[in-house]
Amino acid sequence: MEDLYVIKIGGETINSEDSLKACLKAISTSGKKVILVHGGGKKVTELAQKLFIPQQMVEGRRITSLETLELCTMVYAGLINKNIVAGLSAKKHVAIGLSGADLNCIVSKKRDASVINYGFVGDIVKVDEMVFENFITQNIIPVVNSISISEDAELLNTNADVMAAEIAKTMSANYKVHLLYCFEKSGVLKDITEENSVIPDISKSDFMHMKETKQIADGMIPKLQTAFRALYHGVEEARILKSDALENYFANEKPGTNISLH
Amino acid sequence: MEDLYVIKIGGETINSEDSLKACLKAISTSGKKVILVHGGGKKVTELAQKLFIPQQMVEGRRITSLETLELCTMVYAGLINKNIVAGLSAKKHVAIGLSGADLNCIVSKKRDASVINYGFVGDIVKVDEMVFENFITQNIIPVVNSISISEDAELLNTNADVMAAEIAKTMSANYKVHLLYCFEKSGVLKDITEENSVIPDISKSDFMHMKETKQIADGMIPKLQTAFRALYHGVEEARILKSDALENYFANEKPGTNISLH
Repeated sequence: MEDLYVIKIGGETINSEDSLKACLKAISTSGKKVILVHGGGKKVTELAQKLFIPQQMVEGRRITSLETLELCTMVYAGLINKNIVAGLSAKKHVAIGLSGADLNCIVSKKRDASVINYGFVGDIVKVDEMVFENFITQNIIPVVNSISISEDAELLNTNADVMAAEIAKTMSANYKVHLLYCFEKSGVLKDITEENSVIPDISKSDFMHMKETKQIADGMIPKLQTAFRALYHGVEEARILKSDALENYFANEKPGTNISLH
Repeated sequence: MEDLYVIKIGGETINSEDSLKACLKAISTSGKKVILVHGGGKKVTELAQKLFIPQQMVEGRRITSLETLELCTMVYAGLINKNIVAGLSAKKHVAIGLSGADLNCIVSKKRDASVINYGFVGDIVKVDEMVFENFITQNIIPVVNSISISEDAELLNTNADVMAAEIAKTMSANYKVHLLYCFEKSGVLKDITEENSVIPDISKSDFMHMKETKQIADGMIPKLQTAFRALYHGVEEARILKSDALENYFANEKPGTNISLH
């Protein structure tokens, strides 16, 4: 099977023009088949502040009011998505921006509100493999933002890490999929203040142990859980790395943290 | 040749949920091949006010600073585009949102700044016919926003009326193209305060006469000029009508104003 790289870029990478450029350059020169996934949470927070739209987070997850959904749709599907598409075009790559609503390619279900009401938030129920297959076989890079669509055609905010993992899982049927989470840190760090403390490998049992002994930052737990689920469902490789290290990764180095089931 | 309807929705239609729904319903029940084009200027003006980003207009055209381009990209390519795509999905249509940057489908040239510096504004130099052809033959409705891309891969703000006309002109090679400008008024009005004063037909010579005698609103002049240019370049029909009358149009009535060369 052919390799496919599902690359999620998030965190500060989206805000830093240099990191984003480095990322797109690495993708461009790799010559690999790629699906790019992005969120852009920090831009939404900034804009919400300027517009006096209150933001509420529960356990690190955003409560999405209708006004916040509008901001997310603007920032993710508009500003960030088109800037990435243009950035790839500048590298002579043909790219297409996709929300889950486009071609109904990522369908989600509005999250049950009985325990916590997250508002307009969706959990993915279906990724349309053929949409992605059609683009990547034409060497077109899908650039996917984290807005999905419900079966009732409602736009919903979706976690970008999970979206990348769900795409990776679906594409695993016909590709050797590498799921890469790129962000501003060098990987999963033993000591969050020390960039040199990257843990090169985390197995499922390492993770369970680290969680129990609270050796792992809260924000990292759902990302790792998502990565484990992807591996469990047939994804070949899952890795958390610094955006700037993507070029090294494609040069067969092993930057960041490799996540493995065993 | 088969009929193709290039429908531009603009003005208040974008802001009015009811008008937009009526428009999408008419498109949906028509069963026709459609390319939808939209801007969304008023939403940008509102957002700019809230964010204290000054807006400058020269002869009814927006000067697009970098900050304003960001707003336009958010509002056109994000908020409005995805809401229309979702609205079509609600009618069981598969749609795809496209800016000119996606698949590089609409390439523009930054407007020369020597007389008036319009900022990040582009004039269209190329519409990729095959991109649109591929989608419409699959019964996918392209929903095109008015952000284009330059040959240097810069995002540029583009006039939505012109974008619709350029798409219409290009598609005329293989389709009988009907260019429909839908907005909140009933057509070109003799008396702008009187909705019943629709002029049913305007020929090129009528237009020249009306312009000379100042019988025509300033804002309508570039729209009519664009329509005439489209007809001159092979478009079959050009019509200006109320969004709510689109259903009547597809029922073979002749709502609004028909623009014709002779």
